[in-house]
Amino acid sequence: MNPTEIRTHPFDLATDLTTNDEEGFLGHTSGPYSNMVGPFGGITAATILRAVLDDPRCTAEPLSLTVNFAGPIADGPFAIDTRPVRTNRTTQHWMLMLSQDDVVATTATAVCGTRRPTWSDTEISPPAAPPAESVPIADAPEFPVWMRNYEMRFVEGGGPLTPDPREQPTSTTTLWVRDTPARPLDFLAVTALSDIFIPRVMVRAGRMVAASTVSLTVYFHADAAVLAAHGDRPVLATARAQHFGAGFFDQPPTCGMPTAPR
Amino acid sequence: MNPTEIRTHPFDLATDLTTNDEEGFLGHTSGPYSNMVGPFGGITAATILRAVLDDPRCTAEPLSLTVNFAGPIADGPFAIDTRPVRTNRTTQHWMLMLSQDDVVATTATAVCGTRRPTWSDTEISPPAAPPAESVPIADAPEFPVWMRNYEMRFVEGGGPLTPDPREQPTSTTTLWVRDTPARPLDFLAVTALSDIFIPRVMVRAGRMVAASTVSLTVYFHADAAVLAAHGDRPVLATARAQHFGAGFFDQPPTCGMPTAPR
Repeated sequence: MNPTEIRTHPFDLATDLTTNDEEGFLGHTSGPYSNMVGPFGGITAATILRAVLDDPRCTAEPLSLTVNFAGPIADGPFAIDTRPVRTNRTTQHWMLMLSQDDVVATTATAVCGTRRPTWSDTEISPPAAPPAESVPIADAPEFPVWMRNYEMRFVEGGGPLTPDPREQPTSTTTLWVRDTPARPLDFLAVTALSDIFIPRVMVRAGRMVAASTVSLTVYFHADAAVLAAHGDRPVLATARAQHFGAGFFDQPPTCGMPTAPR
Repeated sequence: MNPTEIRTHPFDLATDLTTNDEEGFLGHTSGPYSNMVGPFGGITAATILRAVLDDPRCTAEPLSLTVNFAGPIADGPFAIDTRPVRTNRTTQHWMLMLSQDDVVATTATAVCGTRRPTWSDTEISPPAAPPAESVPIADAPEFPVWMRNYEMRFVEGGGPLTPDPREQPTSTTTLWVRDTPARPLDFLAVTALSDIFIPRVMVRAGRMVAASTVSLTVYFHADAAVLAAHGDRPVLATARAQHFGAGFFDQPPTCGMPTAPR
């Protein structure tokens, strides 16, 4: 909850907020994070989470965030309405809306919570991957522009981002990824990383097709200290669709830090 | 969108709503669906979705639903505030709050959407399981009460619901499940089924421990016709935790219909 630190990374400039006269904040779209239509969904999700974390009423770190992309965001300013609708001893519940000229473009809920030391265990295993430094960095495409903000090293399933794209029988993408220029990991960066996976239908088809995120939910398993200890090293991230049909599909992503913290 | 049909199944009585003078609906907790504290989260989630589907402004079937359990719900009446904040050609976005005496107990967002015939594929496979009729029905515990509304046939990971519970190295539960008495599948039933998995920490420990759902997101891959075609037969459902730690864990569930529709 330290909103006053001046940070000049493009990601921090893109998610920058000023306080609103009403309940909430004002932000502005960022050219470097523009997508096919409007901004990259990940930067919108991160900006909404920043409105929670920058809010002086925020009492705890984020546990979960759901962002629903209700309509396009036009280049320009937007308002984020932040409502901490319930604050408990260990959890705090937020409802959020991003709007332009009073038209709602994005809805969200966030749950913050106080973590405490307990028994811990991880049941899932990271996918097999060589060390990040041994995987070449993919050339960022000219379009969409936002991809130039990420250093992507594809281990599997680069889809249309690989030199020789073709149809694939599965939609799995596994990659090492971090911001470029490098930036230390935090809740905002992880939120944006959750949406860096291009729509899985493109991976299956081996080409860009019209598709966009409708709804995104992030569960934060790491706390601020774990994220900070990871620093600016790449994370291993993987996603696949479970089902495609009737015009919609899912692609639950997982971002992890399989290397031991320094 | 047919709220006027009179249905007398306990599930339908528990999720029954009347229109509110203000924007939204009034409901009432149901004894048969009570949990350790307050109602079973699945019935709360289903009731909130019903407030969307019963709303005359609803234009499409549900695509996704996120429900955040912000505080306990006391036995008695509650109000659900329903706001269709944006209606597009193919999607509709809702923000919802369940409150008692103006104290918010539950927040939610729902996205509805118009499905259309497209290329479809399923990349995940159901877990191995014998036919439902060959798996014995587990004895419902005395407590929590809500479990008596479900016929559960455990294929794996019954945890404390099995005759000889013990610690387990993994949290996976796979079961055949349906409402009892049997009730045809619909969006509301699927929503409640998403929360029938007892907290995974109990499966690992082999005993009941204090834990409750904080946030639940459901993605609906089936449309109303597919659900109706399934009828009242059991669905195969599976869930596992990915990570436990710091007082919180996840347990993404998947409910499917691995048998061909009749």
